[in-house]
Amino acid sequence: MVPGGDTVRTTAQNAELALLLEVAGTPKPGNVDRDHEYDDLRFEHFLAGAVGARHGFERAADGDPVGAAFEDAIEGMANQRGGNTQFGAVLVLTPLVATTASGDLTRERVRETVAATTVDDAAGFYRAFEHVDVAVDDPPEGMEPLDVRRGSDAVPTLRERGLTLEAIMEQSADVDDVAAEWIGGFGRVFGAADRLEALSGPVADRASTVFLELLAEQPDTFVVTRQDRETAEEVQRRAKAVLAGEERADALADELVERDINPGTTADLTAGALFVALERGLDV
Amino acid sequence: MVPGGDTVRTTAQNAELALLLEVAGTPKPGNVDRDHEYDDLRFEHFLAGAVGARHGFERAADGDPVGAAFEDAIEGMANQRGGNTQFGAVLVLTPLVATTASGDLTRERVRETVAATTVDDAAGFYRAFEHVDVAVDDPPEGMEPLDVRRGSDAVPTLRERGLTLEAIMEQSADVDDVAAEWIGGFGRVFGAADRLEALSGPVADRASTVFLELLAEQPDTFVVTRQDRETAEEVQRRAKAVLAGEERADALADELVERDINPGTTADLTAGALFVALERGLDV
Repeated sequence: MVPGGDTVRTTAQNAELALLLEVAGTPKPGNVDRDHEYDDLRFEHFLAGAVGARHGFERAADGDPVGAAFEDAIEGMANQRGGNTQFGAVLVLTPLVATTASGDLTRERVRETVAATTVDDAAGFYRAFEHVDVAVDDPPEGMEPLDVRRGSDAVPTLRERGLTLEAIMEQSADVDDVAAEWIGGFGRVFGAADRLEALSGPVADRASTVFLELLAEQPDTFVVTRQDRETAEEVQRRAKAVLAGEERADALADELVERDINPGTTADLTAGALFVALERGLDV
Repeated sequence: MVPGGDTVRTTAQNAELALLLEVAGTPKPGNVDRDHEYDDLRFEHFLAGAVGARHGFERAADGDPVGAAFEDAIEGMANQRGGNTQFGAVLVLTPLVATTASGDLTRERVRETVAATTVDDAAGFYRAFEHVDVAVDDPPEGMEPLDVRRGSDAVPTLRERGLTLEAIMEQSADVDDVAAEWIGGFGRVFGAADRLEALSGPVADRASTVFLELLAEQPDTFVVTRQDRETAEEVQRRAKAVLAGEERADALADELVERDINPGTTADLTAGALFVALERGLDV
């Protein structure tokens, strides 16, 4: 008898587990985690979101187009009452899952997955916005036809202009760090995966540490979108202070929840890093 | 746009979500939950266990035999380093999933599922013990050939004696309240599902309340097995005291974790009740 570890988790299982481990890690200042939630956005919504997303990950693992798999995962994720729980995390995970399914999970190969995206994939990405309300800025002047909130109404414009999902991500890469990962070969995600592997202790605790490190590294672009750059920079400074031992993580977590400041992009990257580490054999 | 609720969760998704909501509910005195864990049996092991179990639930939902589906779910559940996280809960859920997949989820129809089990189902149940260490008592004299810890070595004896999975459960129904549910038409599970629906507030909080109510109702048979009847009766009295407002649930939870007393059977029934409530439309 060999209890434990006698089977290997599938790629889609690892993607779902990455979502669950991300939200289990506490404290992750400002975000929902095991010990912090909002009245209308609770820990249990993230559990249901992860359960719902897996079918889309299975499609990505089966070789279905990235855009269709992403839309499927978001439709499943949205099947709970909390609203947008893990949109960005699923957007990070889907190309990583697709890459894993077709061979080694390397930055080089993820770049190839992104480069191979089509206009259909962009259409799937737009359709995903019909399943859930996502906080986004108004588009720049002249870009109104491609406002993501238009959902499938934007698809004719995508086709007219021949825009692939890579091209769509390129347009947001300077204001959204999930898009920046897509365009930059997922450098921060893979770097954070290295850190997860280098740390010791429970995986959920490592996720909390890596979240704080990512938060200290750059202003969170979701905070920039929902609040402003000044707030995002304050959060970055405070995360640095926590890592320097000058501020308590728990107190910062309570304060950011109180102020409704959610560094969601940083959580998205953490979920991606958990997936990469799990695929490389990180034990749970 | 209809964010949330525009799709319906599958039966297997609800079974996995029931496992996740069960472990998210806190406090559940003595058991691992969102705020309580043991060094070698952590919250994250239960997340991975739930993710791993779903494939077996999918097989049960597809009409595969209950025993084979159960073994598959346990093999997947065991694919983490914590050991036995949800063996009993999966044993409660599998016949409920099978029943749901073939029609209405009623006590009458679950009884039919149980009555229809075969010797092959019993063999699957025994094989499941090869994937994980489960705390069980020594078998009564003369029953050594059917000690569950023998795993598939017990299968020839099962065949010789023509024992179905129902017959196996019947033999344990007086010492194991999961087996008692199998034989008694899942009365406590369905009753607890009614309570989950009657309560209000976050589902994880309702799970904690219903767990305490079940614990106050009868001595937990897993505590009887691992400790003794006296301890199980003490835990039952203490749960009653919590419900009467004479003792604090949090303090009891800390004390039972400290004493390594885990009312696991009560958690198993809670997971079953969550599944039944989800299938009936309980919103998350």
